[in-house]
Amino acid sequence: MSLATAQQLDAQDALASKRQLFDLPAGSIYLNGNSLGPVSKAVKQRLQTVVDLQWGDDLISSWNKHHWIDLPGKTGGKIAPLIGAEVDEVVCCDSVSVNLFKLISAALARHELRFPDNKATILSQQDNFPTDLYIAEGFTQLLGSARVELITVTEQDLESAISNKPTILLLTQVNFRTGAVHDIEAITRFAHQQNCAVIWDLSHSVGVLPLELDAWQVDYAVGCGYKYLNGGPGAPAFSYVNKSLLDKLQQPLQGWMGHKAPFDFAADYQADTGINQLQCGTAPILSMSALDAALESFADVTVADLYEKALGLSEVFLESLASSGAADSLQLISPRDASKRGAQLGFSHKDAYAISRALAEQGVQTDFRSPDILRLGFSPLFLSYAECWRAGATLARILEEKLYLEQRFSIRNKVT
Amino acid sequence: MSLATAQQLDAQDALASKRQLFDLPAGSIYLNGNSLGPVSKAVKQRLQTVVDLQWGDDLISSWNKHHWIDLPGKTGGKIAPLIGAEVDEVVCCDSVSVNLFKLISAALARHELRFPDNKATILSQQDNFPTDLYIAEGFTQLLGSARVELITVTEQDLESAISNKPTILLLTQVNFRTGAVHDIEAITRFAHQQNCAVIWDLSHSVGVLPLELDAWQVDYAVGCGYKYLNGGPGAPAFSYVNKSLLDKLQQPLQGWMGHKAPFDFAADYQADTGINQLQCGTAPILSMSALDAALESFADVTVADLYEKALGLSEVFLESLASSGAADSLQLISPRDASKRGAQLGFSHKDAYAISRALAEQGVQTDFRSPDILRLGFSPLFLSYAECWRAGATLARILEEKLYLEQRFSIRNKVT
Repeated sequence: MSLATAQQLDAQDALASKRQLFDLPAGSIYLNGNSLGPVSKAVKQRLQTVVDLQWGDDLISSWNKHHWIDLPGKTGGKIAPLIGAEVDEVVCCDSVSVNLFKLISAALARHELRFPDNKATILSQQDNFPTDLYIAEGFTQLLGSARVELITVTEQDLESAISNKPTILLLTQVNFRTGAVHDIEAITRFAHQQNCAVIWDLSHSVGVLPLELDAWQVDYAVGCGYKYLNGGPGAPAFSYVNKSLLDKLQQPLQGWMGHKAPFDFAADYQADTGINQLQCGTAPILSMSALDAALESFADVTVADLYEKALGLSEVFLESLASSGAADSLQLISPRDASKRGAQLGFSHKDAYAISRALAEQGVQTDFRSPDILRLGFSPLFLSYAECWRAGATLARILEEKLYLEQRFSIRNKVT
Repeated sequence: MSLATAQQLDAQDALASKRQLFDLPAGSIYLNGNSLGPVSKAVKQRLQTVVDLQWGDDLISSWNKHHWIDLPGKTGGKIAPLIGAEVDEVVCCDSVSVNLFKLISAALARHELRFPDNKATILSQQDNFPTDLYIAEGFTQLLGSARVELITVTEQDLESAISNKPTILLLTQVNFRTGAVHDIEAITRFAHQQNCAVIWDLSHSVGVLPLELDAWQVDYAVGCGYKYLNGGPGAPAFSYVNKSLLDKLQQPLQGWMGHKAPFDFAADYQADTGINQLQCGTAPILSMSALDAALESFADVTVADLYEKALGLSEVFLESLASSGAADSLQLISPRDASKRGAQLGFSHKDAYAISRALAEQGVQTDFRSPDILRLGFSPLFLSYAECWRAGATLARILEEKLYLEQRFSIRNKVT
């Protein structure tokens, strides 16, 4: 394989034209779309409209006139086809963390209704994305160990832990460090056999991994708007609730936007029917509008095609990297079998931070993840095969020439 | 009094030049700044910078390079002087509803630490802003009536109810319908004498009512970013926690952004020291940047001056309205004594909705609040005395000529 082969793949790539939807800085290969997706032209245009014409000219009347009030549902409805859900099973609001709190609460309320005397357990994985664990920990501390307990196990021990019939299984499909993928369908089926409800965090999946939540009978899910969905920094997250669980749903973050008739200003809470009851306070319309506009780029693509390209991009990168003997100094922590991983690759190296800085200097943007992980995301909407080939070659050269040992790459920033 | 008198007041108004900071639609008198503040030029410019240069060009590195990571604290720090707090007592994040949940939790945790066997009570007012009641209701339902109960009373019964020593007092300073103002200092002092913690909702106060939270020894407070602060639709809210309560604070919405070292990705939650531990998930940077930029307009004004002008504007409006006999068909539900109300006026009238539509047609933007309230906000940063005189005269004419009875004003929109 060579750069020419990669360029041939680009020439045949049906998704190649999508690149022009985005405004990417020149001379940069952006392998960080799994951390923060880039801005699209549609987002820029929408924000200008929302700020100048909607907020600016029509002010408060925009809630009606420009349908701001419907935006959380409308944006959720655009995410639905990406995850195999119906449009009225998804709503955009709050952060992943806050949404997880709601869904854990809902799953617990359903359990306690059926088994009022049975203490509940939440099972999760030790290397789940930390905020998921923090929220579960906060939830159990609030309710007390007499009512609910959090148990975390290694990936290896998951199956046997599920056999112990926990109440709620809380997992992230794609491991944020390694990219290793859980089989949602099989795990959900097994959990259901144990009378265990499942909550899937799809933050590192949505927009790039084919998902069939309804067909897989998933109970609850959350996901992130600012990674592969390109909704902008801190974009609102989404909640999915299987339609069969929307009736009598109970969750404590019951703000006025989840009320059946918020503008009646009634003193008592009456949950809206359907997925809208997952809303809480007033949605951040600027950030929500950006996400809504970003989702336009998914209108005429299939997630299956995106997934195939993402894996192809990462394989081209690995081939390019492998052409250098120096690549052996990196340890791939992701599954080598592409079908077992998401749209990302992780490598461990004691100088991973310095390597990521050296790559940045050469125009290749990657993530460093503490303590020693170099992480690369392969967003199929805007990356080309040739870019991934060049990124692999650049990394190979940095390793060969030990460029990362230069002093200027060793100073850590506060956030990485 | 006359239009000329109002124009004279404008000529002497030290705040008059602030109007030019905003981009308001021509020919409109905007008495809705207490619902949604208007966009300022600074916000437009900031959003362009954030979208084009930060997100667009610097992508993920903007978290460091452009200090996105510090924005919730920085924006909170700009609100601090408006409420008589220190900069490290205020953080911007989430919605008012979500922040209330955190603070109620924190107040309860502190109570249970001291009195593990005492059931807690949350006392609020029946006509508090509904989302505050909904959140308190959701919280008590989650924890169960054996641990905590919500009691709501009328304004008249508040004092005697506080005498009964509730655990937490949850009040909004300015009544959203009538504009009636609670004396935070006196009520907080009385509550503390009963060993009761106070949580104040400042949504309809911040940016226009002089507040001295530290001096008044307030425990906790929340407030809204999109009313008098002009932060944009659904702008992030803020939380205030008195410094004396920040140590050992416990709240369950403990997302990764409230962690001491989020980018260590540790499995266990360790709360950050200080106010930052109130953060939960990733902040919506576009909406947060708009709020941060909007706060620039407060840099060189005092809230005392804003308050004085706001009351003056509302008095000019009342004088103008009173010049018509037809005004008697409206019932003022706000305190007639300006010192007893916030920067708003409410009137009840059985055709309040149609009146608000008729006003809108004449270029006067007001709020209708179900079932029969016409509500007007007097934002001192951008309104002139002459506008308020004209608005009063317009309303008088609509009442005199019964213009609101015309068919086209009677059709209700979904949201108002």
